[in-house]
Amino acid sequence: MSARRRRRARPLFQRVALIGLGLIGSSLARAIRKHKLAAELVACDRDALVRRRVKALALADTVVGDPARAVRGADLVVLCTPMSTYAGIGAAIGPALAPGAIVSDVGSVKSTALAALGPHMPAHAHLVPGHPISGTENSGPDAGFAELFVGRWCILTPPQGAAPDAVESVRELWRCCGMNVELMDARHHDRVLAITSHVPHLIAYTIVHTVDDLETRLKSEVIKFAASGFRDFTRVAASDPVMWRDVFLENKDAVLEMMGRLYEDIALLQKAIRNDDGAALQRVFERSRRIRRSIVQARQA
Amino acid sequence: MSARRRRRARPLFQRVALIGLGLIGSSLARAIRKHKLAAELVACDRDALVRRRVKALALADTVVGDPARAVRGADLVVLCTPMSTYAGIGAAIGPALAPGAIVSDVGSVKSTALAALGPHMPAHAHLVPGHPISGTENSGPDAGFAELFVGRWCILTPPQGAAPDAVESVRELWRCCGMNVELMDARHHDRVLAITSHVPHLIAYTIVHTVDDLETRLKSEVIKFAASGFRDFTRVAASDPVMWRDVFLENKDAVLEMMGRLYEDIALLQKAIRNDDGAALQRVFERSRRIRRSIVQARQA
Repeated sequence: MSARRRRRARPLFQRVALIGLGLIGSSLARAIRKHKLAAELVACDRDALVRRRVKALALADTVVGDPARAVRGADLVVLCTPMSTYAGIGAAIGPALAPGAIVSDVGSVKSTALAALGPHMPAHAHLVPGHPISGTENSGPDAGFAELFVGRWCILTPPQGAAPDAVESVRELWRCCGMNVELMDARHHDRVLAITSHVPHLIAYTIVHTVDDLETRLKSEVIKFAASGFRDFTRVAASDPVMWRDVFLENKDAVLEMMGRLYEDIALLQKAIRNDDGAALQRVFERSRRIRRSIVQARQA
Repeated sequence: MSARRRRRARPLFQRVALIGLGLIGSSLARAIRKHKLAAELVACDRDALVRRRVKALALADTVVGDPARAVRGADLVVLCTPMSTYAGIGAAIGPALAPGAIVSDVGSVKSTALAALGPHMPAHAHLVPGHPISGTENSGPDAGFAELFVGRWCILTPPQGAAPDAVESVRELWRCCGMNVELMDARHHDRVLAITSHVPHLIAYTIVHTVDDLETRLKSEVIKFAASGFRDFTRVAASDPVMWRDVFLENKDAVLEMMGRLYEDIALLQKAIRNDDGAALQRVFERSRRIRRSIVQARQA
C-alpha cells in the first residue's frame, strides 16, 4: 500500500510515544499532529513544568512522567532527550515495549544510540536510531514548530540486520515531516557531524568566551559592534547546553580527530599571516569561495 | 543648519568621488543617489569591465579610470578599494585634492588607512577614515544595494586634530545611509574587529578546507548534509578573497593576538572533552548562552 493511501485509510502509526518534549520532541509532536501520522500521541517528560506546558499547548493526547508507562502499546517510541539519559530510559522501557515496537531517537551521535539502547531492546522490538539534522537556538516545548524539519536531512543508522519494514516506517515518518532521509553507518555519521556541526559549535561557544574575557571596555564595544562573522558564530552558542555537553562527551573521538585536522590547517594560515604571505592567503580564500559555492549548489545553504 | 534642512536646501556634498565600485562602493553609490546626498557623483575604477557595468547600471554621473581625475573638485572622496591599493591611490590623488576635500574610506583595518593615506594628504585636505561594518558574500558592482548599511554600525577613526566639521560631514553621510555612527581610536577598532570579524572569518575559511581535505566519500556527504553550524560558518568563506587577504596582512598583530587567546580557550574545552568533564563543558555552554543572549539584546544579532 502506498504511503498516501495508507495515510488516508489509517495513520502511519497507531500509538506514538515521544520521550522528551524539548525543541525537537515538541516539534515532532506538532508535525505528527499536523500530518496525522499517529492515531494516538503520548508525551512523556520527567519535568513537571514541561508536562504542564505540553498539556496547556495540547501537544499530545496523553501526558505522563514515566517512560515505561508511556511506551505501553506504542508501535513507535522516539527518544528526544539528552543522550546521557538513553541508557536509563532504555532500561526502563525495555521490559514494557509491545511486540514489534520500533524504538528510534533524534540524537546527534549515532554510535551512542546503538550502544546505549541496543542492550535493552527485547528481541521482539526494533531499534532504528535516527538524526533529523535541524534545530534552532531555542529550547523547550514552546520553542517547537511543525515546520522545523522541512527541507532538511535526516540520517538513519539502523544496526546490521534491522528489519527493513521497521526502517521504512521510520523513513516514512521523517519523509512526512518534510525531510530528505538517508541511511548511513553510525560511526561514519558521527565523523561527518563532528566536522560539520560539532566542531563549529565548539568554536562558536569558545569564541564567545574569548570575547567575554577581554578587558571590560573592549568587550562592551565588541558586543555592541558585533556583526556578520561574529553574529553567525554566536548564533549557535545559544544552543541547549545540556544537549551539547552530551554531544561532546559522546562523540569525543571524532571531535578530537576533527579538531586536530582543523588546528593543522589553521596553523598553515597563521604562518602565512605571520610571514606576510599574501599570495598563500589569497589562494586559500579563493579555494574556500569555490567550495562554498559548491555547497550552496548542493542546496543545504 | 540641521541635516534635514540642509538636505532639502542643498545636498550634503557637491561632488562625491568613489574610488572602487565593488560591493561596498556600488552600495554607497546607490545609497547616495537614493538619499540625494551629492549634487554630483563620480565613480572611478581601474577595471574596465567594472566601469562598463557602472555605466550600464547608471550608478554615477561620471565614470573614469584615473583617481587623480576622479577627485578633481570633489568635496568628498571615499576609497572603496582593497587596502593594499591605498598608498598608491593616496600618492595619485594627494596633489589633485581640492582645498577642504575630505578623504574617507571603508576598509576593515583603520590603522592602515591612517598609515597608508596620511602621508599623502595635503595640509588643506581632511582625512577621516571610516569602517561601515556591513557586507554580503557577493562582490562587484552588481552586488551592491542601497540598504546594505541600514541598521548597522559605522566606526570613524579620525586622527588626532581632525577638523570637527569634516568628521561631522562623514558621520552625516553614514547616518543618512541608515547607520549608527561612532568614533573610536584606530588601533582599538582593529583589535575589536580582529576578534569579532577577522578571526571568525579565518576559521570559516579554514574549516571549509578541512572538510575539503577529507577523503572523497566523507567529503561529499559532509557537503550534502551540511546544516546549521557548517552553513553559518561557510557563509563567510565566500567573501571576497582579495579584500580578506589584505585584512589579514594589515591587521596581523591584532589577529595573531586574538588567535592566541582563542587557542588557549579552545585548549581548555578540548581538555575537558578528553577528560570526559561534562560539568566543565556544561558550565562553559551555559555561560556562552548567557553571553549570546546579551548580544541579541544589544541588537546586533
